[in-house]
Amino acid sequence: MAKMKKAPKPKAQTPKGFRDYFGAEVTKRTEMLNQIAAVYHRYGFDALETSAVETVEALGKFLPDVDRPNEGVFAWEEDKDWLALRYDMTAPLARVYAQHRNDLPTPYRRYAMGPVWRNEKPGPGRFRQFYQCDADTVGAPSVAADAEICAMLADTLEAVGIDRGDYIIRVNNRKVLNGVMEVAGLAGDDKEAERGIVLRAIDKLDRLGVEGVRALLGEGRKDESGDVTKGAGLNEEQIEVVLKFVNANDVVKSNALIDLSEAIGDGDSEIADVIRAEIELSDNKGQHTSDRDDIGDFVNSQRCEYLRKLVQGSEVGIQGVDELEEITALLSAQGYEANRIVIDPSVVRGLGYYTGPVYEAELTFEVTDEKGRPRNFGSVAGGGRYDDLVKRFTGQEVPATGVSIGVDRLLAALDAKGRLSKAAVGPVVVTVMDKARMADYQTMVAELRNAGIRSEVYLGNPKNFGNQLKYADARQSPIAIIAGGDEFENDVIQIKDLILGAEIAKSATLEEWKGLPSQYEVPRGDLVAKVREILAGQGA
Amino acid sequence: MAKMKKAPKPKAQTPKGFRDYFGAEVTKRTEMLNQIAAVYHRYGFDALETSAVETVEALGKFLPDVDRPNEGVFAWEEDKDWLALRYDMTAPLARVYAQHRNDLPTPYRRYAMGPVWRNEKPGPGRFRQFYQCDADTVGAPSVAADAEICAMLADTLEAVGIDRGDYIIRVNNRKVLNGVMEVAGLAGDDKEAERGIVLRAIDKLDRLGVEGVRALLGEGRKDESGDVTKGAGLNEEQIEVVLKFVNANDVVKSNALIDLSEAIGDGDSEIADVIRAEIELSDNKGQHTSDRDDIGDFVNSQRCEYLRKLVQGSEVGIQGVDELEEITALLSAQGYEANRIVIDPSVVRGLGYYTGPVYEAELTFEVTDEKGRPRNFGSVAGGGRYDDLVKRFTGQEVPATGVSIGVDRLLAALDAKGRLSKAAVGPVVVTVMDKARMADYQTMVAELRNAGIRSEVYLGNPKNFGNQLKYADARQSPIAIIAGGDEFENDVIQIKDLILGAEIAKSATLEEWKGLPSQYEVPRGDLVAKVREILAGQGA
Repeated sequence: MAKMKKAPKPKAQTPKGFRDYFGAEVTKRTEMLNQIAAVYHRYGFDALETSAVETVEALGKFLPDVDRPNEGVFAWEEDKDWLALRYDMTAPLARVYAQHRNDLPTPYRRYAMGPVWRNEKPGPGRFRQFYQCDADTVGAPSVAADAEICAMLADTLEAVGIDRGDYIIRVNNRKVLNGVMEVAGLAGDDKEAERGIVLRAIDKLDRLGVEGVRALLGEGRKDESGDVTKGAGLNEEQIEVVLKFVNANDVVKSNALIDLSEAIGDGDSEIADVIRAEIELSDNKGQHTSDRDDIGDFVNSQRCEYLRKLVQGSEVGIQGVDELEEITALLSAQGYEANRIVIDPSVVRGLGYYTGPVYEAELTFEVTDEKGRPRNFGSVAGGGRYDDLVKRFTGQEVPATGVSIGVDRLLAALDAKGRLSKAAVGPVVVTVMDKARMADYQTMVAELRNAGIRSEVYLGNPKNFGNQLKYADARQSPIAIIAGGDEFENDVIQIKDLILGAEIAKSATLEEWKGLPSQYEVPRGDLVAKVREILAGQGA
Repeated sequence: MAKMKKAPKPKAQTPKGFRDYFGAEVTKRTEMLNQIAAVYHRYGFDALETSAVETVEALGKFLPDVDRPNEGVFAWEEDKDWLALRYDMTAPLARVYAQHRNDLPTPYRRYAMGPVWRNEKPGPGRFRQFYQCDADTVGAPSVAADAEICAMLADTLEAVGIDRGDYIIRVNNRKVLNGVMEVAGLAGDDKEAERGIVLRAIDKLDRLGVEGVRALLGEGRKDESGDVTKGAGLNEEQIEVVLKFVNANDVVKSNALIDLSEAIGDGDSEIADVIRAEIELSDNKGQHTSDRDDIGDFVNSQRCEYLRKLVQGSEVGIQGVDELEEITALLSAQGYEANRIVIDPSVVRGLGYYTGPVYEAELTFEVTDEKGRPRNFGSVAGGGRYDDLVKRFTGQEVPATGVSIGVDRLLAALDAKGRLSKAAVGPVVVTVMDKARMADYQTMVAELRNAGIRSEVYLGNPKNFGNQLKYADARQSPIAIIAGGDEFENDVIQIKDLILGAEIAKSATLEEWKGLPSQYEVPRGDLVAKVREILAGQGA
């Protein structure tokens, strides 16, 4: 430790945007990550742990024209190399695969879980270090790999405690969007900037609505503060093509409503029921009241049919729709019906590097937000196919697809559903009445621990007994053990049920309280048995 | 992802001194950390996860007279603050306790596990990122807290698979050493430099032997390469005092040998047996052939008696010996006899910040080193009491004691003892004979996974079937499933026992091999049952 003579006292603070995690915050996350790893492992994925530090060059954020790597990463110069903390798990995977490709199986299925770092402005609930939990398949060109990730994502959500019906996995394909661009006359290298603006505009559909997106596709949009976002400058016809894609779900639903009224008009109640269920499903909640299993598949096929018409004439667009149909067919064969995994053209996902199927897991149950309003929980995981990432290193295109789970959001969701293991149980506290008897107290905790019971001796200053009970309270201790001179003489101990005690304290009068009905005197030899009995009673 | 046009291809490499961990390397570590956490939790310790990044100021490595923080840490400037990666778990704990002390229980028992970073020259087996696994008690002044950590360390080693008898926890006390310094006339602020040299010299006993230490205590020492290390400049008398301490174990043993010959001379065979066992134990292996439980206690008391004589006249020295006796008494009462936890004056531990008891866990079994020579496995954990670390922040002295487990060394030890779970089982591989049947293959793996069996469909290019079997081999797959046109027509599948197949291939002739006795044709409906049967057979 460096000498700090005469220096002012250092501040005891985390750096801005970082935080500490205590007790159950840590163990609940560990437990969830272990559950996720078990599913990934069953699917044949292997663990990979890369170092937190990478060269900036390998991470791919290096901009040669500035003195420092660009914003977004924590980077520093070390022996003339620029090093950085990883900002996600995908860039290190690309580096690992390029570095070790001769020793790794192909395809290479790997999972990775751990912290990543972002040098971004911190905000409420936004930290500069957070957990990611990824699974990727590298070297598998077929959409069977994408379908597998979607199936695994569904299994994972159920394994950690999200019920079927409480989540929906929405799948789209970038190729369909590229086909739409082509049909709208936005193909070609010279239109890259416009395509970028269109992509970002579509990604904002949820926030801006159709009219906002329409403005961004055209001349641009002025927001409430007066700031202007430049538009893609498309003409009316082009905008209509893109909006037909953006509105696909609504259009399919409108068509279904027309079909429904026709079916009712025709008196065909069976078809009408199917269409009603289809419309329910189209509301994106993944739930419908019909008992027919094929409703989801019907929605998927309706949407594919619509998309196929939309991209007519674009080879890549047609290929995208074919792939979507293949994915749903594969998933359906394994029992993942469209009430769990649904085709949804509104899923774009912002990242520029996706090249094929993209997918997103949304939790469909409602929670109340900070203002007490109900809202959907929203997205907890997402991913897609990115076939170009390894190419940076090797020059060869390597197909890859993968998903990233937002660990903190998923934990929050489980918490909201009451699916996390109950508040961590505090330890049994053996209090200290007589410091000279420390060996006896230690022997008591040793017995309890050997019986698998979490327990500890009070190791603070024992002079003030009240402080010991306050400590037990702060530790959320279920039971306190008390033994002083009298007890040792008579070979007994006092066992205090702190949970029951707290309940009595809430309701009892002082006179009743003095009766101490939550405290038991038992023979010393019955320590473990009596503690077990009380703990069992508290758990009931 | 930044555009890399015209830029040269980035190198796919970890930064110097960093590495990747694959598959079982990751999962075995996770498993061990979970086992350790369970013991820590049972002892009442709470998890704490601090961020990887701290301010240099809080870490305490800042030297105001240089432009950059000193060597040893990875540090960089960010918005005029110097940030750094934590280099251990203790400095962040001191910061956390100072920052949150009003909300934390006192005493605060916490454990922390995760990577730390050192900006040091990498070497073989020495990496710049490695795991630590710490448990500390903050705010408990009594040596009962130190004793508890020693007991917990013993339980932890046994929980992860180190047998009793294969480890020894050695305990010493800095106060005894301070007493020795005082007796040798090395007390006082003006002797701080000398004390530092003495401390470092003693810490090198294992490597340099007594004569090397003697040289460092005196004028200095020239090593084989001719480099000179400056000595402490003590006179003969001072050197003798320090060496009596350094040699304490040997002196106690010599005294025992004298006692032994006397006992034999007197024909007192019972005492002779006790002393023989004592001598065995003194060899620091923690093992003796006697069936007497009190041998260890006897050794501890012999050593304490010797140390007490050595520090006569030094108040702090006597206090140190008293504390050692108290620790062994507490541990003995809980059943931790001295064949597990032994007083050993040769334990110094280099870190300057220890102020009281210090302890070290050594594995006593032999392994063969890289040159095939047997050697003791050595230390896997260590720690001690440091009462000054929090004071840096608050000005108030806060007593603390804790242990750090060298995760990688402990894993290596378990590996050497064959105590790690067996080589991770590869997945059952469902091969692809007919790409159009992908949904059928996916259905097979879905059945296997739902039965809890790790399995995957081959997702590479299926054209060359040999590649699929090579892949299964690279995945250490136990079983391959094969189904083509004939099989689908007859509603059967081929199940290939790859473990048995490999054994046959080793010994069989080509003709026998062609008989394929390790391959079974079963009805499609028997997939899961037959795979289970084969896996069970392989496990036997």
